Amino acid sequence: MPDGDFSLNCPIPLSDYPHVLLAHGGGGRLMNDLIERMFGPAFANPLLDERHDGAVFSAPQGRLAFTTDSYVVHPLFFPGGDIGILAVNGTVNDLAMCGARPLHLAAAFIIEEGLPMETLWRVTESMRKAAREAGVAIVTGDTKVVDRGKGDGLFVTTAGIGVVEHGLKIAPGSVREGDAVVLSGDIGRHGMAVMAVREGLSFESAIESDCAPLAAVTGALVSDGLSLHCLRDLTRGGLASALVEIAQGARLRVNVRETAVPVREDVRAACEILGLDPLYVANEGRFVCFLPAAEADRALSIIRGFPVGKGAAVIGHVAAANSDSPKMTPCVIMTTAVGTERIVDMFSGEQLPRIC
Amino acid sequence: MPDGDFSLNCPIPLSDYPHVLLAHGGGGRLMNDLIERMFGPAFANPLLDERHDGAVFSAPQGRLAFTTDSYVVHPLFFPGGDIGILAVNGTVNDLAMCGARPLHLAAAFIIEEGLPMETLWRVTESMRKAAREAGVAIVTGDTKVVDRGKGDGLFVTTAGIGVVEHGLKIAPGSVREGDAVVLSGDIGRHGMAVMAVREGLSFESAIESDCAPLAAVTGALVSDGLSLHCLRDLTRGGLASALVEIAQGARLRVNVRETAVPVREDVRAACEILGLDPLYVANEGRFVCFLPAAEADRALSIIRGFPVGKGAAVIGHVAAANSDSPKMTPCVIMTTAVGTERIVDMFSGEQLPRIC
Repeated sequence: MPDGDFSLNCPIPLSDYPHVLLAHGGGGRLMNDLIERMFGPAFANPLLDERHDGAVFSAPQGRLAFTTDSYVVHPLFFPGGDIGILAVNGTVNDLAMCGARPLHLAAAFIIEEGLPMETLWRVTESMRKAAREAGVAIVTGDTKVVDRGKGDGLFVTTAGIGVVEHGLKIAPGSVREGDAVVLSGDIGRHGMAVMAVREGLSFESAIESDCAPLAAVTGALVSDGLSLHCLRDLTRGGLASALVEIAQGARLRVNVRETAVPVREDVRAACEILGLDPLYVANEGRFVCFLPAAEADRALSIIRGFPVGKGAAVIGHVAAANSDSPKMTPCVIMTTAVGTERIVDMFSGEQLPRIC
Repeated sequence: MPDGDFSLNCPIPLSDYPHVLLAHGGGGRLMNDLIERMFGPAFANPLLDERHDGAVFSAPQGRLAFTTDSYVVHPLFFPGGDIGILAVNGTVNDLAMCGARPLHLAAAFIIEEGLPMETLWRVTESMRKAAREAGVAIVTGDTKVVDRGKGDGLFVTTAGIGVVEHGLKIAPGSVREGDAVVLSGDIGRHGMAVMAVREGLSFESAIESDCAPLAAVTGALVSDGLSLHCLRDLTRGGLASALVEIAQGARLRVNVRETAVPVREDVRAACEILGLDPLYVANEGRFVCFLPAAEADRALSIIRGFPVGKGAAVIGHVAAANSDSPKMTPCVIMTTAVGTERIVDMFSGEQLPRIC
């Protein structure tokens, strides 16, 4: 480990165990080895080092946020990331969208018998680095192995605890008429990066996933004292689904200008090839922020101050709705490039399965 | 729902959706339906009802305990339980073994495309009842669907948060020479219940899993002011692995009397048929408690006061070890029925894969 950053060698001898065996999840000696040699040293911290059934720590001052997600992305590795980076950042971002500062993660692995040990090690290393970058500790975990043909290499489930150090209620129900809708950057990259690998497509410029931790950005918005009403990251279902869910939760209308939504040219071209609408394509490092229009410029300048938020833009605003009037139900309306209006709805089928 | 306890009908119309589709995990309308019609009403509570990316709640007074486990048991249903009951009780019990009072669970589902919708509903109902019985709320969750042949029906991962309302440090490192080892009941039932179904065995009396929540029992031990040194539930790897892990963590010897360890006759017979040692067979409602010998009788009487602890017994005690002496290393020594001594070690292979 010359730079202290990456161990080149898998700590489980590959000559003895080139692949994960059922016994690595059986609760006996091999599972103990996997924990003591691979997961333990990679994620080392005082809580995990206790090796108890769970982690015990002092409750922080403030409210708590708690969330979980399973990650089943296929393939496990894609341009710009892998399942391990997703599993850390995805849960960190869900905490960030609660307005919380992420503290601790739990990680549960469901491994298919026969997974190359080296693959498990690469994912573990990715998780270690992603956790360090996001400032969280992996304090507890679990390992299960399922028989060959009953899984798909590796599924990772993370849960996270964060602390909410402010008095805001950040939720769809807090959104108000007149709020500005701020988007943190261009959309569609994660979904297209994964699909390009899966479909064997190659584009002139490789599209990389936007996967990134967002807690530093949302933390800066909170620290600045902005009146944040709602935050939402744009994962499965993309920007469209996030906006529809918020409009329904708020019982208001969200108006969006199509020309204001940044989409990279290569992403747009890839979407066209695959017949996809970038509005529905998954992102792993993008979010929307709803707050009073008067504070939108301040929010923009804060978000743009982070590498992950360079492309931030105000993309719309919130208007009244009236559930009793069929023509005024809560929904998302998009003004297209040619000036017409269309309703943006949730999609009905599967657009991109196993994208995260 | 005549008794308010069980909804006979799956809330997703089975004529439209007899099986789970990829789209039920796609982030669109069908996933929204699954959450709003099935998971939401079954697990309803004010935190889950917010439908945010995570649950936000006031931090309780005391330290926090945090744990996670994935459940991949095969088959999904077995005598005395199912994957849903396991997923709730298993995580509740891990919190209990930290000496914590369980508060909130997160539940993440990885569903294989084609799972009968009715099966998902039965598991959901089981989780609802188990959570109510254990006094915890399922406050946040996630749903993923993987393509046919890439999973095995259903995997469930739960994470849990509990509050530690005392000053004890319950961990292997707190175990002391002279401690008594109290076992909460007969061992081996869960593993043999699952194996009997899997191997198509039938015994004269059906063996049912011992799956049960243990937090009420451990809570009573804590409330009584006992000097608890270590608690550990006897899941994968059984009693033997739990004792070996604690002996190693404590750097002490654990002496156990074979005749003091309760094993039901039908469980012993089933183990013999399958060539298994009950010491290594998984339990889901049993634990060991290490505490000063002078307090063992009080602990026994408290544990026996709960239905789940009727068969509690003192099975051994803790003696000194000396890591520098090859003949005195930390380990588990069992005095057999005929008076000889043997070392109890972790097993090396997989004894019972996918038992939880």
